[in-house]
Amino acid sequence: MQPVILLVRPQLVENIGTTARAMLNCGLEQLRLVAPRDPWPLDNTHQARMLAAASGADAVLEQASVFPSLAEAIGDLHTLYAATARPRDMLKPVLTPRLAMVEVRQRLAAGEKIGFLFGPERTGLTNDDLSVVEKIITIPANPAFSSFNLAQAVLVLAYEWCSQQQEAHPETLAYGKTRPATKAELQHFFDHLERELEAHGFFTTPELKPSMVQNLRNALLRGQWSEQEVRTWHGVVTALARNAR
Amino acid sequence: MQPVILLVRPQLVENIGTTARAMLNCGLEQLRLVAPRDPWPLDNTHQARMLAAASGADAVLEQASVFPSLAEAIGDLHTLYAATARPRDMLKPVLTPRLAMVEVRQRLAAGEKIGFLFGPERTGLTNDDLSVVEKIITIPANPAFSSFNLAQAVLVLAYEWCSQQQEAHPETLAYGKTRPATKAELQHFFDHLERELEAHGFFTTPELKPSMVQNLRNALLRGQWSEQEVRTWHGVVTALARNAR
Repeated sequence: MQPVILLVRPQLVENIGTTARAMLNCGLEQLRLVAPRDPWPLDNTHQARMLAAASGADAVLEQASVFPSLAEAIGDLHTLYAATARPRDMLKPVLTPRLAMVEVRQRLAAGEKIGFLFGPERTGLTNDDLSVVEKIITIPANPAFSSFNLAQAVLVLAYEWCSQQQEAHPETLAYGKTRPATKAELQHFFDHLERELEAHGFFTTPELKPSMVQNLRNALLRGQWSEQEVRTWHGVVTALARNAR
Repeated sequence: MQPVILLVRPQLVENIGTTARAMLNCGLEQLRLVAPRDPWPLDNTHQARMLAAASGADAVLEQASVFPSLAEAIGDLHTLYAATARPRDMLKPVLTPRLAMVEVRQRLAAGEKIGFLFGPERTGLTNDDLSVVEKIITIPANPAFSSFNLAQAVLVLAYEWCSQQQEAHPETLAYGKTRPATKAELQHFFDHLERELEAHGFFTTPELKPSMVQNLRNALLRGQWSEQEVRTWHGVVTALARNAR
């Protein structure tokens, strides 16, 4: 089972299309539209604009249901979450998208049907809309610029849906007294190495040179060299390039 | 310090604008453009289209730097990550956005400058582009529909940037032999309650009724009632509404 995405009074068919794309990118396919501004079914012009924005997510749009009111759209659902940046003067639990999705997975596993509400582009959800939801999801955002595009807000929820909970154990590399090499330092070394390889007839087949160069660079990049190591390897290349005694 | 977002050969000025909006929503402000398709500085028409798409994130665009080549755009950076859905025939570490951002925060704290590369809309990054990066970030996606809009891909990374690592301890509610009430069951109860309150002269000031109704419903919704409890409360209202003996 999946959560249902409900767009409440969406104004722009383009945003309905980009929402469908974002949903399908993350494997969500259940879309409900509540009183969209443009009358449904859409005329050919609006339909074309919506499909262009969907970039191939047509299946989501074809299966979408349209309801005249929010009450009619939610009757079969058990728990509702509203995505809104603005905390209202309402006593509702507020969750991050991440925490909400952990909870939603538990609820779905227990057999509940879940809905996520998103408001109109310009005005957002009203207090009356919010009075039907159990909880509010607020996307962590820049307080000075917190208004998300409608499809972008849907994507954050959809991304949390498809993103598995992962243990975070990144490798570390102790550079000690040195520091990671900069790209300019590495490029200087690559130039040195490839110039000497060219001079020594390493690239026997000219048309294979670009992919050989890529493979050489990939092998060295994986080493995450320090500035000290780059200097050492300049010395290595210089030494190897000298005529043997 | 923040990571730098690099758009490599972006084709549509609208996507540059929506990228800026997504970045600023999540507090990222450092944007570099590598060989954008439309010549820079933009003419008035393209500039207007970009700014409309940015919805007010003009500051990011004004501070953006433009470079003729990728090599020139990355010289001062220490570690690069490329966002791409397609694993190429290249031996590169692949990370999720979440894991990558944990690592990036450590690298930034250690004084590194970090860049995230995003490819052109239609073709994505080439193997030559990828040969400069240490690691690849792949957004978890629907394998049948994995191509993200450019700004949507940027948003996922930006969202991971601003999303704090949160411990996930959602509350649970043991429904036992019953189940959560559906919205239709709850609405039926609200109608019952409000009808009886109306009949009993509870709403003395008509213009305050809508907000009073909202507050009543909010208080009851927070209880996350079971189907059993809804039936019980129907009985409560019915009983209270009867004339006292």
